[in-house]
Amino acid sequence: MDSIAYVNGDFVLLSEAKVSVLDRGFLFADGIYEVSAVLGGKLIDNDSHLARLERSVGEIKLPLPETVARIKEIQHELISRNQLKDGLVYIQVTRGADVGRDFAFPKGVKPTLMMFTSVKDIVNAASAKTGIGVITVPDIRWTRRDIKSVALLAQVLAKQAAAEAGAGEAWMIEDGGKVTEGGSSSAFILTKDDVLVTRENSSAILPGCTRKAVVKLAEERQLRVEERAFTIEEALRAKEAFITSASSFVQPVVKIDGELVADGKPGPVALRLREIYIEFARATGT
Amino acid sequence: MDSIAYVNGDFVLLSEAKVSVLDRGFLFADGIYEVSAVLGGKLIDNDSHLARLERSVGEIKLPLPETVARIKEIQHELISRNQLKDGLVYIQVTRGADVGRDFAFPKGVKPTLMMFTSVKDIVNAASAKTGIGVITVPDIRWTRRDIKSVALLAQVLAKQAAAEAGAGEAWMIEDGGKVTEGGSSSAFILTKDDVLVTRENSSAILPGCTRKAVVKLAEERQLRVEERAFTIEEALRAKEAFITSASSFVQPVVKIDGELVADGKPGPVALRLREIYIEFARATGT
Repeated sequence: MDSIAYVNGDFVLLSEAKVSVLDRGFLFADGIYEVSAVLGGKLIDNDSHLARLERSVGEIKLPLPETVARIKEIQHELISRNQLKDGLVYIQVTRGADVGRDFAFPKGVKPTLMMFTSVKDIVNAASAKTGIGVITVPDIRWTRRDIKSVALLAQVLAKQAAAEAGAGEAWMIEDGGKVTEGGSSSAFILTKDDVLVTRENSSAILPGCTRKAVVKLAEERQLRVEERAFTIEEALRAKEAFITSASSFVQPVVKIDGELVADGKPGPVALRLREIYIEFARATGT
Repeated sequence: MDSIAYVNGDFVLLSEAKVSVLDRGFLFADGIYEVSAVLGGKLIDNDSHLARLERSVGEIKLPLPETVARIKEIQHELISRNQLKDGLVYIQVTRGADVGRDFAFPKGVKPTLMMFTSVKDIVNAASAKTGIGVITVPDIRWTRRDIKSVALLAQVLAKQAAAEAGAGEAWMIEDGGKVTEGGSSSAFILTKDDVLVTRENSSAILPGCTRKAVVKLAEERQLRVEERAFTIEEALRAKEAFITSASSFVQPVVKIDGELVADGKPGPVALRLREIYIEFARATGT
């Protein structure tokens, strides 16, 4: 099923949307991306995603080719043209296509802006009811994981390993089993003392938008949250575990490397936080 | 000046050569590249580059969409169509364009093969006579630097920093000032005891094809070579320093972070190795 995408000012069929082979996104992974969820035709937590987009491009000195206001308009136009109810809007900005290939930034080249939508029924995902298994892989990424760049090969390999193991996500670990985050999600546990634990923001992880919203929603409901690293051992002793991301909201984790988390069923706090996030999303979508 | 490129079976103008926005090279940096030099219309050390291409794609389980023999044919056809005398042939293979965007490997998708040439007078580069300055930057890359992937954002930022400092290359350092390699080259020094030192191959660096050839040529001429890490302090106390790469052969380094290497002039061993490499290239080009 085809849809309409946006590439540098034009609305075109996604299946026919193209960029130059000299685009620096293609040659150098010299680009940034964002994904916002869509629920009932409305963008979820979108300002948070666009703020992170602005921060990421700033960190690699990549000027946005359009204003954030215009990018929002294009998001809405894509939702409208594709009659998108539930799904995702993807945004990618790259440093454009020069006439040749040089590592250093080109001069006088307009950055590329590419956007498309995809259909996804995030709310009714079966895996939210059953929970997912995760595997662990060494975190082999670069040291600036706070930048949401398209240099995603390490995450591709991590998530492929998860897929081959029949797992829904790969948790990346370093420094003696400390979890940094998932291949495309943030990692949480609920300790035996009912403390929600998720790694503190730093250059070691991406500052998750859904992570941030879930922490806020949890704290507003008097849940104790500690932002610190946790190990796989701690996760296996935890009451619950879950992941958050724009494309999955909150998903219970019931198995880590084949071992059950608690009784191997989605935990009540994870399921409740999922409901709370969906309520928040429905109430605040734009 | 336009030229002919190759994209998935077609020979097209480079300025009009395009790939899908869903190409995994563009979305995920899920691809591998190689660059071979061309001298007098002949490919230099090309088997070494194609062997590394095969190794790199193997490491990320990316099947080549054409045989190595066919890739060689396309290289020659591009040289011929573009009447290329001196320059480079660029090859990029990615995991192709799926109908959507999922991290895990797509099924039934043919990998993308893209190739183009560029004109470059490597032999007569002015910087080979004057030498270049390098700056140092922290090596922030992932831990699989032995894979020649297009996830090059760290190198882009390093080489942009070098360009802004008026330097010709950035040496990436870690573990207390130990040089890994340049943003797009291998790093060598010649110690006071006339020992050529370059870092040993491991996942910390790309196994340089030109590095390998230069080490072999040097050893054949009874130069002592030690493959081990060296620090910036050691480089500043060295008799000479230089870089090697397919696109620059051997280039003397005369300045590191603004400090002169020896008397700040290209060293005789670096210049001699450059000549020797050019002789080797002319004698063995294919």
